[in-house]
Amino acid sequence: MVGAGQLARMTHQAAIALGQSLRILADSPDDGAALVGADVVVGNFRSLDDLRAFAVGCDAVTFDHEHVPNAHIAALEADGVSVHPGSAALLYAQDKAAMRRKLAELGVPCPRWAPVASAADVNDFAELVGWPLVLKATRGGYDGKGVWVVESPAAAASLLATLTPSGLPAPASSEPDGGEVELIAEEKVTILRELAADVARSPFGQGAVWPVVETVQQDGICVEVIAPAPGLDEERAEQAQALALRIASELGVTGVLAVELFETPEGLLVNELAMRPHNSAHWTIEGARTSQFEQHLRAVLDYPLGSTAPTAPVIVMANLLGGPDDVTPKGIDERVHHLMAHWPDVKIHLYGKQFRPGRKVGHVTALGDDLADVRSRAQAAADYLMNGDRRG
Amino acid sequence: MVGAGQLARMTHQAAIALGQSLRILADSPDDGAALVGADVVVGNFRSLDDLRAFAVGCDAVTFDHEHVPNAHIAALEADGVSVHPGSAALLYAQDKAAMRRKLAELGVPCPRWAPVASAADVNDFAELVGWPLVLKATRGGYDGKGVWVVESPAAAASLLATLTPSGLPAPASSEPDGGEVELIAEEKVTILRELAADVARSPFGQGAVWPVVETVQQDGICVEVIAPAPGLDEERAEQAQALALRIASELGVTGVLAVELFETPEGLLVNELAMRPHNSAHWTIEGARTSQFEQHLRAVLDYPLGSTAPTAPVIVMANLLGGPDDVTPKGIDERVHHLMAHWPDVKIHLYGKQFRPGRKVGHVTALGDDLADVRSRAQAAADYLMNGDRRG
Repeated sequence: MVGAGQLARMTHQAAIALGQSLRILADSPDDGAALVGADVVVGNFRSLDDLRAFAVGCDAVTFDHEHVPNAHIAALEADGVSVHPGSAALLYAQDKAAMRRKLAELGVPCPRWAPVASAADVNDFAELVGWPLVLKATRGGYDGKGVWVVESPAAAASLLATLTPSGLPAPASSEPDGGEVELIAEEKVTILRELAADVARSPFGQGAVWPVVETVQQDGICVEVIAPAPGLDEERAEQAQALALRIASELGVTGVLAVELFETPEGLLVNELAMRPHNSAHWTIEGARTSQFEQHLRAVLDYPLGSTAPTAPVIVMANLLGGPDDVTPKGIDERVHHLMAHWPDVKIHLYGKQFRPGRKVGHVTALGDDLADVRSRAQAAADYLMNGDRRG
Repeated sequence: MVGAGQLARMTHQAAIALGQSLRILADSPDDGAALVGADVVVGNFRSLDDLRAFAVGCDAVTFDHEHVPNAHIAALEADGVSVHPGSAALLYAQDKAAMRRKLAELGVPCPRWAPVASAADVNDFAELVGWPLVLKATRGGYDGKGVWVVESPAAAASLLATLTPSGLPAPASSEPDGGEVELIAEEKVTILRELAADVARSPFGQGAVWPVVETVQQDGICVEVIAPAPGLDEERAEQAQALALRIASELGVTGVLAVELFETPEGLLVNELAMRPHNSAHWTIEGARTSQFEQHLRAVLDYPLGSTAPTAPVIVMANLLGGPDDVTPKGIDERVHHLMAHWPDVKIHLYGKQFRPGRKVGHVTALGDDLADVRSRAQAAADYLMNGDRRG
């Protein structure tokens, strides 16, 4: 697995049960997965030489993030390396313009959009969809970074003026591409809530889908995932699942595909695609018969996929986002003690990261029969771990 | 963790979620846990120097097996190392004579027994309990090794004559102690079935107990564990749990304690004690809210213990015991494919070991509502993985 963040860390856990050991390409020996893996190579995922050296002896190569240059992935494929997802599919998770174009071709419902290169382009698009609208960098965005809501022509012009390459926040554990920032504009749709339909697809073509979940966002970052999405109409849930399976198949995705959706008054619209284990399916570790990490490994190794049946009526995952202070390791440890004592059935996942404001340092999962109860336990446990006695 | 077998391997999986990384003392870099751990020290667990060097910087030291010399553990404790279980408790899992003596003191029901050093001693004991009877090496036995059923005075005399140190099978991944084989004799009780009561206890004194399970044995090796033990009288189950918690407390056990029990017409008798994660609780990985591996870590690190609630009405674990042939890695891989295709909800755990006849190379777990269905799926999956198309 290229990349050594929490996704690789949790994939390694799943690999152990399958009798495998994950080889990990890390930026640094301190990366979350590098701290726990047996076969860690420190190297640069933007270097084709490093990628080629890393791939030698791997049964399959897969990814913890979308930032590996697509041309390098194609070069590995040309070398005969089994890469999943492949470059042709991954492009649609790397480039939002390519993704929107492809989904339009397939007739998949999306917000209206247009590529834009100037303030004039944005104003033209605004004629069609009105203000405010959304500007997105086509590449390198994540967790709300690389996405801007602009209210007026003046705001759009001002943003465009600042969007030099150095103006775009660098993606996690990587350097910016160094090229020009390319943008698309999207209409700002009325969002009732956000959903995710997570599926896996193997090279053989087998697909498997987990229950559709609600992803609760705060400031563009997912803070909570509720499985299954509460009160979601069965027909709409099946529509979302079928859509995700169809996208996986039409795009030739191998591995896990997360389809982030907006639920709007007019129906479901696709927001983003991710082709790797995804935050919206962390609940599957305890909450589904097969976790997304095991399923991703099964898929990229072309094993038959596992059962996606849920293990409880309600499963809630809450992200651990670093609070405003610099808590000491001892302080965190004390909070873990309290959390374990208060909520003996809440499961903790820590990613081996330093706590920093807003940083995803782990998650917790609660399960049960009653939505309000399960949510409140997950939220309270996460809040306590992040904020200690300062919690509300 | 001292020792790098499958118990350390699965403990490392649990450690990752807790934000920890398990340091492992391995005999060889090819040991199951050494293949997947980030912090592996190759050394000799019979060397106090190696143990001391290994312990530097560990928050707590614990064990994958019982073969570390008790005096070395006491020496680590004298150095100020936090060792769990401690030497005083672990003695009772290392020495069957000491265990029987201590349990008798506590009034815990056990088979009648006596230390024996000669054929005459055995014959004296037989006067009391009759033939056949059971002879056991006080140290180093496991999986039916170091245990002999003898039918007559002649058989006992013949066995005693052969029991030189080299006559005792060496314990897994260790050398024999080199000393004389010490023996105890035990009455051969009428066993209706074998049960296990698995608990954890923290240094703080908190105890937690999983449902009592039935352990199905073949040739002295556990082949299947059924949770909860089918048809077990509620009162007897509670008695077994209370007994296990009491033993943990009276012996000062920290970490997981497995109490292996005989169910006899006269009630429950204690067979063996193990003070580490144990085969009888592998089902807890999927089948309990807190797995024995997470619980063992919580206990030895003195965290509050997790919920032991089961996640399904019936959970069955079947061991993967290497079949009679030398199957190739490719052959195993094909079987894994078939297993995953036929039983998408059976969970596989492979230990990274070469398949050899009778060797525990992994286990599978099935869950569900119906005992017969869950058992048949677990057994069929295990049988297929071990025997391929030669299965019955």
